[in-house]
Amino acid sequence: MTFTFGKNFRIHVFGESHGEGIGVVVEGVPPGLPIDEKMIQQELDKRRPGSSQLVSSRSEKDQVSIRSGVFNGKSTGAPVTLTIPNMDVDSTHYEKIRHTPRPGHADYTARIKFNQYNDYRGGGTFSGRMTAAFVMAGALALEILREQGVNVLAHVVQLGKVKADQEVSSYEISKNVYQNLVRCADVDSIEKMKKEIAQAKADGDSVGGIIECRVIGVPVGLGEPLFDSVESTISHAIFSIPGVKGIEFGSGFRGSSRRGSENNDSLIVVDGSVGWSKNDAGGILGGISNGEPIVFRVAVKPTPSISAPQHTVDLNEMKEVSIVTRGRHDPSIAPRAVPVIEALAAVVMVDLLMRKKSTMHDIRNHN
Amino acid sequence: MTFTFGKNFRIHVFGESHGEGIGVVVEGVPPGLPIDEKMIQQELDKRRPGSSQLVSSRSEKDQVSIRSGVFNGKSTGAPVTLTIPNMDVDSTHYEKIRHTPRPGHADYTARIKFNQYNDYRGGGTFSGRMTAAFVMAGALALEILREQGVNVLAHVVQLGKVKADQEVSSYEISKNVYQNLVRCADVDSIEKMKKEIAQAKADGDSVGGIIECRVIGVPVGLGEPLFDSVESTISHAIFSIPGVKGIEFGSGFRGSSRRGSENNDSLIVVDGSVGWSKNDAGGILGGISNGEPIVFRVAVKPTPSISAPQHTVDLNEMKEVSIVTRGRHDPSIAPRAVPVIEALAAVVMVDLLMRKKSTMHDIRNHN
Amino acid sequence: MTFTFGKNFRIHVFGESHGEGIGVVVEGVPPGLPIDEKMIQQELDKRRPGSSQLVSSRSEKDQVSIRSGVFNGKSTGAPVTLTIPNMDVDSTHYEKIRHTPRPGHADYTARIKFNQYNDYRGGGTFSGRMTAAFVMAGALALEILREQGVNVLAHVVQLGKVKADQEVSSYEISKNVYQNLVRCADVDSIEKMKKEIAQAKADGDSVGGIIECRVIGVPVGLGEPLFDSVESTISHAIFSIPGVKGIEFGSGFRGSSRRGSENNDSLIVVDGSVGWSKNDAGGILGGISNGEPIVFRVAVKPTPSISAPQHTVDLNEMKEVSIVTRGRHDPSIAPRAVPVIEALAAVVMVDLLMRKKSTMHDIRNHN
Amino acid sequence: MTFTFGKNFRIHVFGESHGEGIGVVVEGVPPGLPIDEKMIQQELDKRRPGSSQLVSSRSEKDQVSIRSGVFNGKSTGAPVTLTIPNMDVDSTHYEKIRHTPRPGHADYTARIKFNQYNDYRGGGTFSGRMTAAFVMAGALALEILREQGVNVLAHVVQLGKVKADQEVSSYEISKNVYQNLVRCADVDSIEKMKKEIAQAKADGDSVGGIIECRVIGVPVGLGEPLFDSVESTISHAIFSIPGVKGIEFGSGFRGSSRRGSENNDSLIVVDGSVGWSKNDAGGILGGISNGEPIVFRVAVKPTPSISAPQHTVDLNEMKEVSIVTRGRHDPSIAPRAVPVIEALAAVVMVDLLMRKKSTMHDIRNHN
Repeated sequence: MTFTFGKNFRIHVFGESHGEGIGVVVEGVPPGLPIDEKMIQQELDKRRPGSSQLVSSRSEKDQVSIRSGVFNGKSTGAPVTLTIPNMDVDSTHYEKIRHTPRPGHADYTARIKFNQYNDYRGGGTFSGRMTAAFVMAGALALEILREQGVNVLAHVVQLGKVKADQEVSSYEISKNVYQNLVRCADVDSIEKMKKEIAQAKADGDSVGGIIECRVIGVPVGLGEPLFDSVESTISHAIFSIPGVKGIEFGSGFRGSSRRGSENNDSLIVVDGSVGWSKNDAGGILGGISNGEPIVFRVAVKPTPSISAPQHTVDLNEMKEVSIVTRGRHDPSIAPRAVPVIEALAAVVMVDLLMRKKSTMHDIRNHN
Repeated sequence: MTFTFGKNFRIHVFGESHGEGIGVVVEGVPPGLPIDEKMIQQELDKRRPGSSQLVSSRSEKDQVSIRSGVFNGKSTGAPVTLTIPNMDVDSTHYEKIRHTPRPGHADYTARIKFNQYNDYRGGGTFSGRMTAAFVMAGALALEILREQGVNVLAHVVQLGKVKADQEVSSYEISKNVYQNLVRCADVDSIEKMKKEIAQAKADGDSVGGIIECRVIGVPVGLGEPLFDSVESTISHAIFSIPGVKGIEFGSGFRGSSRRGSENNDSLIVVDGSVGWSKNDAGGILGGISNGEPIVFRVAVKPTPSISAPQHTVDLNEMKEVSIVTRGRHDPSIAPRAVPVIEALAAVVMVDLLMRKKSTMHDIRNHN
Repeated sequence: MTFTFGKNFRIHVFGESHGEGIGVVVEGVPPGLPIDEKMIQQELDKRRPGSSQLVSSRSEKDQVSIRSGVFNGKSTGAPVTLTIPNMDVDSTHYEKIRHTPRPGHADYTARIKFNQYNDYRGGGTFSGRMTAAFVMAGALALEILREQGVNVLAHVVQLGKVKADQEVSSYEISKNVYQNLVRCADVDSIEKMKKEIAQAKADGDSVGGIIECRVIGVPVGLGEPLFDSVESTISHAIFSIPGVKGIEFGSGFRGSSRRGSENNDSLIVVDGSVGWSKNDAGGILGGISNGEPIVFRVAVKPTPSISAPQHTVDLNEMKEVSIVTRGRHDPSIAPRAVPVIEALAAVVMVDLLMRKKSTMHDIRNHN
Repeated sequence: MTFTFGKNFRIHVFGESHGEGIGVVVEGVPPGLPIDEKMIQQELDKRRPGSSQLVSSRSEKDQVSIRSGVFNGKSTGAPVTLTIPNMDVDSTHYEKIRHTPRPGHADYTARIKFNQYNDYRGGGTFSGRMTAAFVMAGALALEILREQGVNVLAHVVQLGKVKADQEVSSYEISKNVYQNLVRCADVDSIEKMKKEIAQAKADGDSVGGIIECRVIGVPVGLGEPLFDSVESTISHAIFSIPGVKGIEFGSGFRGSSRRGSENNDSLIVVDGSVGWSKNDAGGILGGISNGEPIVFRVAVKPTPSISAPQHTVDLNEMKEVSIVTRGRHDPSIAPRAVPVIEALAAVVMVDLLMRKKSTMHDIRNHN
């Protein structure tokens, strides 16, 4: 298991869905950064299920505590530790299904990998609840980026079969996303998406979705190719979110059916500086940021836990059986993944910013 | 810059397109592995452009030399160093276009990041030629996997607008892919794909493509979630290939429009063991291999270097100009990416195999 | 700052001397290891100051809580998080001396490095109290080693000017060390050492010491040279203990004045297997364990905090002043470093054991 | 095996004593650094045995080639690869002693660890010849440090039983060390040291030694405690030199018998800035540089290869035998370790400089 991510800005995650709680240790926070519970809580609240028919009925306040690394309201340079408790835990159902792995879940693979010692309650350490730790760490990263003029904006562009009707501006994303439960920036598509979820839930089923994320204000030169390109590091982080099965940058899969003359972005002069005619590169050339917004799209699978009966194997008896997953689950995890994707994108960008700082030529001239 | 990949099985890449050559240092090769130039050359030859209208006219033999780590035909446990020389280098064109970055290339971002000290000849260290190093390292990884009964098979499933007509078996992939220049396993689609490339070339243009890769024979339990899941580690590696802009595992982006009841794979009993009804998970659940083939698809963008005129900026004069990219380029890099993807997938799998070994419970019982 | 140590078995430390408490996240604990608070408390208690004139008057129970990674009394494979609270905190004195760095302490260097944002109370994250985190992680490592038949034994061999009179057996170490407050295994030297400390304290002063550590039962073949030799990894860990200024393996500095014929250990046959005539190599040849006990000695400096007046600079006024360090300090930290050294040695050995497992030839044959 | 060292400035070593040659890949070299063969050769020549009765008779020119990462005489930002060939190889003797491990060498431990696949000729990858790779990488690091006003000076302070008579200034070190074959800065001790070596050689024996190293001009604030303190990182690197068995910083082991009042360095005001009354801390407090020279001493064991008969075991017959080590060996490796220690100290300092850059508060203010 590897619960650590990052090179110069590093996060170490711990906790379980039905254990005492969830936490994260963040190394590399620059000293003097203003940190309080409120700024972290604000991000955590974006991820909370809220209370509606569209989300899980598990009710967690996710109240954050700062455990280390902050003194007089500012980071000290030492590791910052953040935790939330688990309050509303009900493990009864999981004892029953312990030996009948839920299709689409980590139940079977975790059981084999950990020789049956894994904590199976609520998915244990494979639970989507772990992403609260990403959001806590992301709150610090977002604050660091804000000081650098960098902003991260994600939004749902497809929910099940419903695609957002129109392109949205970054302003619309920042204005609309957290005003509706499906995290959609296109106001005309919100109701259709809500219905898609509600219908799935009514059918005892679930739906997947696609989320777009934009990182705005990125300076030219971030990314450490060959191996730690912007695409490599972002995808590495994003695939740690349970349920993510695809990612594309800029024109992505669409670009594969194009010709070069169509897909290439031209360099232009804008106010005496270099600009770009369009952004099919997703803000990245040769694995390095080119000054345009970094744009990527994330494919989230439908929640595997559904109340309709499914087929699996009873591992004790080694025979096929039918199961019904009770627990408390979101009929789509795509909306709740939006702040998680923002958080991890921020963590990656801070790490790349720091790595650029440490490896750039200016170290030679301006010690 | 980070030219290192892997944790327990590590590769360190070096070289440039128009420098002395390309090389790789491989750490973690288990002692006693039979290694000779022939087995590595065989993999390198799959990546060589060959000689046809479909590929670059640069003619490189890519003849490998073993520089360290092998004694009496077997690995010693010390780092294995492999190199190929650059023979057919012509840098004239690059001096001319030095200050006019080619659209779609790393020319501009590398120039800014390295303060104009980057080697701009032939793309320098951002050249596709660097992938020869991946293939050399991959040859060792593939040999290690072979002893474990693991096989890696990639093939082109889309070239420009031409999609392969039909699903192919793994047997067909292993039989057909390296028998045709477009690296397509579906024999009925080969000619159409060739035409797609030839037409693009005739137009002074290029096309992208999509490659599918399958890893077969993977034991249950590989992958180190949260952060080093199979998806995270494979995507990290694959995005280091120049021109890759997207990746999806299993049903990927298609799965996002599905319902859970459709997307979930059921567990079944096969010959007294656990099997799966289908493989929409791409062989991975919770970031851990489930015993099915690991399946992913990679989006490759159209070669940015095209002979048709393009728009860019002369950075010395800071004014917009038109350029024509001469050099010697493939009208599509997708076919040549096939052995590269196989190589990197193999490197990742060996690393995950070794990491499982070191962290598993059996260390406690069978020292 | 880097609060992370280890490659396959990794520890992440957090907390401050006068903050909420101290903690550690341990990654790589094999699933199924029996873990309870009692076994960790037992190690922590060895490090506690106790109550005598020989130690600090700060009274901390150091009561451990398991926060994650344990289910039904066994490790799950997920990160194990352990914490202790700070209870007996009195920061008054530190506000007063905030701008007058204590000689021999990190006060000045931390202030400059962290631009005055560091938590200066009780030394903050530079406090010896951080070593409680090492001991907690070490308790898990020691348990893993015990299952492998490996044992770690440290003892004080010099306190100030008092050297232990005679060589002791490993049995004497395990029997005597935690039965006396100076952690000396040679019963004849205990009283002299106690007097050395008591006298220093009476004089408002402190003394240093030397600790020997032996790791017994180590299999041949641990250590990953060139760079991660047994010596490199142990010294890396040990120098993270505040106050350590030297380390030597086997004959160490004494060996430097010898001739090869005297210093070399001969190979002999013992019961049909390879043995060694003596152990001046400290159990390590070429950076790899040779089957003999790994033996090293650690130089600990005298506690820098003394009650006698010292000379320093008032950084606000930039003028020289005299200070008296009040706080609550041990007149010698050497005895309390004994379980800390054992803990870190255990952490290193587990990491090396796991790394050997993952890189050895047997991965090829016995998957 | 781990042949990689460093986090932001990383070196990857490869090669064998009797293979094709020795090499190093250096990642993180800032772009624009002037690099040519001459500056690297100059450092390599300091390590060459020369030709006298005091050194090995193996005659290697160690002629360096730059293989990548340099363009128009300057670093590009890509990995810099440097190699030297092995020219004067004679492996005859090693075939004979293959199954009779030499006392004090890695022969036995390497054989077990690598299951007899290790390259045993000339010690293979455990040979002191590997340190040529450290010196090549160090040449780049020293150049980077020079631009920052940092200088690294090592010298032999003890050879066998002969200690240098008097303290020397840094000026004397830089002036004298490479003017005599024993690398001693105290001119009055040179002849005595030469005699100590010559006598040992005449007796078919060898001697150890102690080397002091000073890093001058280090800014306050380098070092990343807890775990990557200046002491931890330097010791980690230094123990990768074959034959090193001890290290101490500042007053080191001597400090352990002192009282705090004697060992603590006082802060003083020097020209309006903070200075120190003396330097028993070795320039490091709390694992962080304090502005004084970083000073450490390294214990080197006597060369294990001696021509006098020694006792070992024939592993094929599993019986005790007597062997005579022929090969070509230095009667003391201490003098030749001097430039190696300088090189590794430089590599560590550059890495710490870069890491400070990337984690410091200034990243927040001066992007």
